[in-house]
Amino acid sequence: MACNLKDGATISFHHHLRDGDDVLRAVMSEIAALGLRDIRVAASSLFPVHAPLVEHIRSGVVTRIVSSYITGPVAKAISAGELPTPAVLQTHGGRARAIEAGELHIDVAFVAAPAADIYGNLNGVEGKSACGVLGYPMVDARHADRVVAITDTLLDFPLSSIDIAQDLVDYVVRVDSIGDPAKIVSGTTRVTEDPTGLAIAAMAARVIEASGLLVDGFSFQTGAGGISLAVAKDIAVAMRDRHVIGSFAAGGVTEGIVSMFKQGLFRTLFDVQCFDLGAVASYREDKGHLAMSASLYANPASKGALVNQLDVMVLGAAEVDLNFNVNVTAVGGGAIIGGSGGHADTAAGAKLALVTTRIVAGGNPKIVDAVECVTTPGETIDVVVTEAGVAVNRQRADLRARLAAAGIPLVDIERLRDLAADQAEATVRRQVDPTARIVAVVEYRDGTVIDVVRKRRNLPPGA
Amino acid sequence: MACNLKDGATISFHHHLRDGDDVLRAVMSEIAALGLRDIRVAASSLFPVHAPLVEHIRSGVVTRIVSSYITGPVAKAISAGELPTPAVLQTHGGRARAIEAGELHIDVAFVAAPAADIYGNLNGVEGKSACGVLGYPMVDARHADRVVAITDTLLDFPLSSIDIAQDLVDYVVRVDSIGDPAKIVSGTTRVTEDPTGLAIAAMAARVIEASGLLVDGFSFQTGAGGISLAVAKDIAVAMRDRHVIGSFAAGGVTEGIVSMFKQGLFRTLFDVQCFDLGAVASYREDKGHLAMSASLYANPASKGALVNQLDVMVLGAAEVDLNFNVNVTAVGGGAIIGGSGGHADTAAGAKLALVTTRIVAGGNPKIVDAVECVTTPGETIDVVVTEAGVAVNRQRADLRARLAAAGIPLVDIERLRDLAADQAEATVRRQVDPTARIVAVVEYRDGTVIDVVRKRRNLPPGA
Repeated sequence: MACNLKDGATISFHHHLRDGDDVLRAVMSEIAALGLRDIRVAASSLFPVHAPLVEHIRSGVVTRIVSSYITGPVAKAISAGELPTPAVLQTHGGRARAIEAGELHIDVAFVAAPAADIYGNLNGVEGKSACGVLGYPMVDARHADRVVAITDTLLDFPLSSIDIAQDLVDYVVRVDSIGDPAKIVSGTTRVTEDPTGLAIAAMAARVIEASGLLVDGFSFQTGAGGISLAVAKDIAVAMRDRHVIGSFAAGGVTEGIVSMFKQGLFRTLFDVQCFDLGAVASYREDKGHLAMSASLYANPASKGALVNQLDVMVLGAAEVDLNFNVNVTAVGGGAIIGGSGGHADTAAGAKLALVTTRIVAGGNPKIVDAVECVTTPGETIDVVVTEAGVAVNRQRADLRARLAAAGIPLVDIERLRDLAADQAEATVRRQVDPTARIVAVVEYRDGTVIDVVRKRRNLPPGA
Repeated sequence: MACNLKDGATISFHHHLRDGDDVLRAVMSEIAALGLRDIRVAASSLFPVHAPLVEHIRSGVVTRIVSSYITGPVAKAISAGELPTPAVLQTHGGRARAIEAGELHIDVAFVAAPAADIYGNLNGVEGKSACGVLGYPMVDARHADRVVAITDTLLDFPLSSIDIAQDLVDYVVRVDSIGDPAKIVSGTTRVTEDPTGLAIAAMAARVIEASGLLVDGFSFQTGAGGISLAVAKDIAVAMRDRHVIGSFAAGGVTEGIVSMFKQGLFRTLFDVQCFDLGAVASYREDKGHLAMSASLYANPASKGALVNQLDVMVLGAAEVDLNFNVNVTAVGGGAIIGGSGGHADTAAGAKLALVTTRIVAGGNPKIVDAVECVTTPGETIDVVVTEAGVAVNRQRADLRARLAAAGIPLVDIERLRDLAADQAEATVRRQVDPTARIVAVVEYRDGTVIDVVRKRRNLPPGA
C-alpha cells in the first residue's frame, strides 16, 4: 500500500457524508484484508452506517477510537466494553486543537470527496454525493503525514471551486460510490410540528429577544434539530420586526439559516458543514457564504475561533443538572448516545448559551440532580428553556433580571427537577456502576478529561 | 511590545503592496526606536520604496535579509557589502518550503492588509489600498509564532471575503495609510509597443503554437512585462482560432489574463498576486478566479505545487548562457537587480519554459558564454526566443524537431552569443572579483545553494 500503513497507525475520517458514508467501511475493509492490527480510528463522528467497525474491533484490527460524536452499533459496542482501550470523546474544536498541537498525530487521513480532480483538488459541492463545505477534513489534510482523497466524481482539472487544494493531498482514489446521497444530507431540515416543541421554541426566542443581544451585529448558531429550527424561524421574524442586521450565522448551516442570509438578516455565513441541500446550493452559489475549518470554527488554541464571537447558541440536551451541566454523551448507566460535537465549544464561546429541552422524554426526567456524564460544564450554560419555565444560571443575575423584566416565566432549576421527577414514569433510573471499567474518556475542548463513561451493567434480555 | 520581539528575531513582510508599501518602513522605524538589534528581515520582495532599510543595516538594527527579489537602494547596499552577513535570495516556492519546513522560522509576521476586521480577518480586495489576492503572507501567517496585521481600512466584522482568517492572526493594528495606492498595483499593465518586442512576442506565440501544447486543457503563465503581455495577447488569438479551452492560467495575474478568462479561454485562474486593478476587480467578483498560497503555487516540497501542471511559462532574462542558464539576479560584476521570484519555480515545473529576450540591451550582450549568476538552471529552460532567432535546449530534440517542422527560424545558442557580442558596445563587461566577499547566496527552490553574489568592485565616480 502506497501509504505505508503499519500496525498501530492512526487513520482519520470525517463525517460530512453522515449516515450515508461508505468510505470508512470500504477503507477499513481493505485495511483488515491487509492484515493490519491495532489501528487507531480518528473519525470526526461515527454513525449507524459505520456498524462494520464493530467487527474490526472484535477482530483486533481496531483497538482505539477517537471521535467527537458516536451513535449506533459502534457506540453500543464501546458501551458494552468491546473496545480494549477507552474511546476518547473530543469536541469538534478540541479535535482540531489536538491535531494542530500534535497530540493526535494522523498517519493517514482519508478524505471522502464528493468531487476531485486527478491532482487532488477537492470540493463538496459537485458530484452525486455533494455534501457542501468540507470544514472538518481541512484540518486533517493539513497535518496528516499522508492524505488520501476518495471520490466517486473525478472532474477535469482544475476543479472550479476548491475546499482542500492539491498541495495537501497525496493520492486520489476513484470508487464507484462514496455513499448514499439520500442519507448524506437531508433533502430539507424540518421545523418541529409538535406543540410542546413549538412552545419551547417560542419561549427561547422570547428569551433571546429579552437578552439584549438582538441588535445590529447579532450573531447566531443553532443545530439542525426540530426545536432549534423553530427558534431560528421565530428569531427571523423578530429580526425583521426590529430591523436588526446580524453580523453572521455559523454552523452546521441549514436552509432556514440560508433563508435568513438571503433576506439580508445576516451579512455572512460561516459554514463548517452543510446540513441540507439548500445549504449545499447556497455554499456553491452565494458570495458571503464562507467555508470555515474546524479550527477556525472552534479550536480553543487558535488565535481566534469563531465560537468566541457568537452572541447566541441554541443547544439541545439529553440531561441538564442542578449545576447546569449538560449531558449529550451517555445515559441509562453507560449507553453512549453521541457526544459533544460542537456543543461544549459553542457553549464556552457564546455570550448566551441557551439549552432548549422538554423536562421529560421517553419517560425519563431530563432535569436531574446530577447528569450521568458531563459533556458541557454548567459554568458555560446560561439558561435552560423548557415547557415548564425558564431557569437561569445563578452566575447570570444580570440575565435573570433582564428576563424577569420582560415577563419571562422564570423558575429555579430545582423546581424543574421536581416537576420532571413527578412527570417521569416510576421506573428507577439506571445507575452507572462506579466499579465498572472505563470505556470512554470525555475530553473537554482544551484536552483535559472532564468525565468518563463506564461499562454498562449487563442488561436483562430485551432491554 | 506585545509580540515580545527580542534581539536576533526574524520578522517577515510580504510584497503585495510592491513599490507603494509603507508598512515595512513604519514597522522597522518602531523596531529601531525600541533599540532592537540583529534583526533578520524575511521579506518576500524588497523594492525601491524600502530604502529606509539601508539605514537600519548601517546602524546594526538589521544584520540579515532573506528575500526572493530585491531592487533599489537595499540591493545596492547589499551589493556594496554593507550587510554584515550574506543576504539569502530564495525563490517564491523555496521561501514557502523553507517556512513550512521550519528552516526559516518567523518570530513575527507583519501582514499589510488592505482590509481587516477587529478579529483579524483579512483581505486585499477592499479599502483604498486594495491589492488583490494575499497569496504570499498566507504561508507566513500559518507558520509564524505571532501574526500582526496592519491595515488602514478597518471594516465591520466579519469581512465579506477572507484571504487570511482570524484563527491565524494575533493582533490588528490600524494606521492612517499602509501605502501609496498609485504604486501598489498598476492601473493597467501595458503590452509593449516596441517593434522588436512585438516581433519577439509574435515569435514566442508561434513557438507555443508549434510546441503541440496548445490544445484543450492548455495551462499558461506569464509575467507582467510588456513582451510577456504581448505573448498572452497573441496566444489569446491563437486559442480562439483553434477553439482551445485552457484549464488554467496562473500568476501574478493581469488584466490581459483576466480578459482571456472572461472570454472562456481558461476555465480557472490561480492567483497568488494581482498585478493590476483589472485583476483585483476580477478576484473580488469572479467565481473561478481562485486565490493560491505561495505554497500551492510553487513549493517544491508540497504535495503538488501548481507550477508542476503548467504547460507553458513565458520568462524574461537579464542574461542567458550557452548552457541555457538564466540570470535575473546580478549583473555588472555584482549588482543585484532582483532575483528569482517565481522564475526558477515555474521554469522547473512547466513543460515548456520559454525565455523571451533581446540579444542586447543597454549596450550589453544578453546571450553570453556564462551568466554572471545562475538564477535558473539551464536544464529547466527549454527554449530562448530572440529577435535573431530561436534557440532550443540540446536536451529537447523533440521540441527542436517540432519547431523546425513548423518553420520556426532556429539558431544555435552559440550563434546568438556571437550576434550579441557583435551588436554590443565595445566596452568590456564588468567582471566579478572572485576573491571578493560573498554578499548574497542564491538558494535554489529546494534550499541548495546554486550560486553566490560577490561584493562589487569599487566603482569609479559616476558609474
